[in-house]
Amino acid sequence: MKIAICGITGVVGQETLRCLKDLDFPVEELVCFASARSAGKEIETPFGKRNIQKFSLDTCQDFDFVFLCVGGGFSAEFGRKLAEQNARVIDNSSHFRGEEDVPLIVPEVNAQDIGDAKLIANPNCTTAILAVVLYPIYKEFGLKKVINSTYQATSGGGKAAMDELEEQSRNYLAGKKVMNNKFIHPIPFNLIPAIDVFQENGYTKEEMKVAWETRKIFGVPDLKLSTTAVRIPTFRAHAESVTVETEKPVDLEKVRKILSSSPGVKFTDDPQNQIYPMPLTVSGKFDVEVGRIRKNEVFGDYGLDFFVCGDQLLKGAALNTVQIAKAIIEMS
Amino acid sequence: MKIAICGITGVVGQETLRCLKDLDFPVEELVCFASARSAGKEIETPFGKRNIQKFSLDTCQDFDFVFLCVGGGFSAEFGRKLAEQNARVIDNSSHFRGEEDVPLIVPEVNAQDIGDAKLIANPNCTTAILAVVLYPIYKEFGLKKVINSTYQATSGGGKAAMDELEEQSRNYLAGKKVMNNKFIHPIPFNLIPAIDVFQENGYTKEEMKVAWETRKIFGVPDLKLSTTAVRIPTFRAHAESVTVETEKPVDLEKVRKILSSSPGVKFTDDPQNQIYPMPLTVSGKFDVEVGRIRKNEVFGDYGLDFFVCGDQLLKGAALNTVQIAKAIIEMS
Repeated sequence: MKIAICGITGVVGQETLRCLKDLDFPVEELVCFASARSAGKEIETPFGKRNIQKFSLDTCQDFDFVFLCVGGGFSAEFGRKLAEQNARVIDNSSHFRGEEDVPLIVPEVNAQDIGDAKLIANPNCTTAILAVVLYPIYKEFGLKKVINSTYQATSGGGKAAMDELEEQSRNYLAGKKVMNNKFIHPIPFNLIPAIDVFQENGYTKEEMKVAWETRKIFGVPDLKLSTTAVRIPTFRAHAESVTVETEKPVDLEKVRKILSSSPGVKFTDDPQNQIYPMPLTVSGKFDVEVGRIRKNEVFGDYGLDFFVCGDQLLKGAALNTVQIAKAIIEMS
Repeated sequence: MKIAICGITGVVGQETLRCLKDLDFPVEELVCFASARSAGKEIETPFGKRNIQKFSLDTCQDFDFVFLCVGGGFSAEFGRKLAEQNARVIDNSSHFRGEEDVPLIVPEVNAQDIGDAKLIANPNCTTAILAVVLYPIYKEFGLKKVINSTYQATSGGGKAAMDELEEQSRNYLAGKKVMNNKFIHPIPFNLIPAIDVFQENGYTKEEMKVAWETRKIFGVPDLKLSTTAVRIPTFRAHAESVTVETEKPVDLEKVRKILSSSPGVKFTDDPQNQIYPMPLTVSGKFDVEVGRIRKNEVFGDYGLDFFVCGDQLLKGAALNTVQIAKAIIEMS
């Protein structure tokens, strides 16, 4: 397969390379695009050295797959044009996620929705990490309500945001002034209960994305789901504290059995041995961890609590895009 | 008033001194007790220098107020005996909170429950911080369900836990091995979704305390409240993401008005100007911040979301005990 990656110098571009390698993706040709600033530089990839190319529509031709690991502006300008050139374009940005003709895919949930679409959207990181755990519960018990509070890592803001956490934590510990540039407030030893812009309903766009996108991925347009999205000082793994009200009574044994065998999920629920999902154990891993599984006391027999943690750069971004590409190959 | 503080060398003991001073508590005599290890050492207090005394029942006599800033074991052994000596004993530990004859007090909510009790329990930090915000909402709209996810600081584990966060963060950033002693897992740039021991129902004791104690403080034995308690790498402010279902329809303007004038609460809700509760702004402050106030989309007209943040060592501990003592003086 002929592969192009746009945005190779970013963290998601880099993780996409790793996922292509680790998932034995049949890479025959690999071209790495980035902005003019990086063009011409040589980089190491798991597929050998490459010279970074400056992107243009003319030079990005005849690929089987184009991975867009760039901002929404770039995707808006080039996403559909690249798809018209017959490549399968998998876009990490939020730009196309709401568009009706663009499938939004978490392969464990709705690979069949890809069909023959050329342009495919990759969900928001928080959505994808939640979906692999929530979907098996939805299938077995139904969902009346989903209430979610997140613990999101700095990687959601890219490498510069991760660097800001590291550098400013050093400053904090050295008693120096703590600055903030990528974040609206200093992030070391703090939390920020606001990610992305605020909507009229008082939710942030990040919070609404989880509802909008989960509804589309599950094919349940009226799913009641609310999120409170909070940035915390971790590097690359998002966690989510989830309470659901189900349609059918919850059987905890069945929940454990289902989540132990769900694709993309690592059952991480052994509290007596201090085993539960954590950024420490999930960072760098493909599977999303789920634990703290218990009946929710507020909803009684119809209530379930669980805690998920997944690598924001992997299942929340690069891994899911490569899994989409693999699903396309397998289905064709 | 003649005041004794047991556990003067701990962070809560130290903050109690500060609160006595800042609240203009009528301190006429102050005796500071600690373990044999610290006895004899001289310490600075806002009321002058003191020699730390080794605690014994015989030496701890004739006080108006005894503040117990020590572990549950000490409280269990001496709490009732001190109360029998006619002091008003205010205990920070969880030991007496569930006992019927011991009032559990958040002065903004239930100061009247103190009555003539000699022994008074101070609630869990997460409970107290939530209560000052939740109670005015309960009074106005009623509460059918409360679902709460926490972001708890290391100060909950005492000074050694705060030091562990600081020292081990340094190690992490220096590329050295990160150790853990106070925490069951390394805390720097991580989170731990488990505080205190696990109960049979899958909740931790910390999580159940919030339900048990809120019911007692509000005088609502069947209040439906569930918590997921998570430790994050912050120093001394707890945050809580709260969703409630109310009895009466929510009027957001009324919520804002009520929370703007509730005692102990700082209305911190101006998202367009990036103002919301954060550890950065609340640490060292007496009031609990509340913001991110919005209708919860899942519960419709009967749903409300908000985010609270309060200093764990102040409203979560020392401040509340001194406020209890002040309330006793005012009511007598």
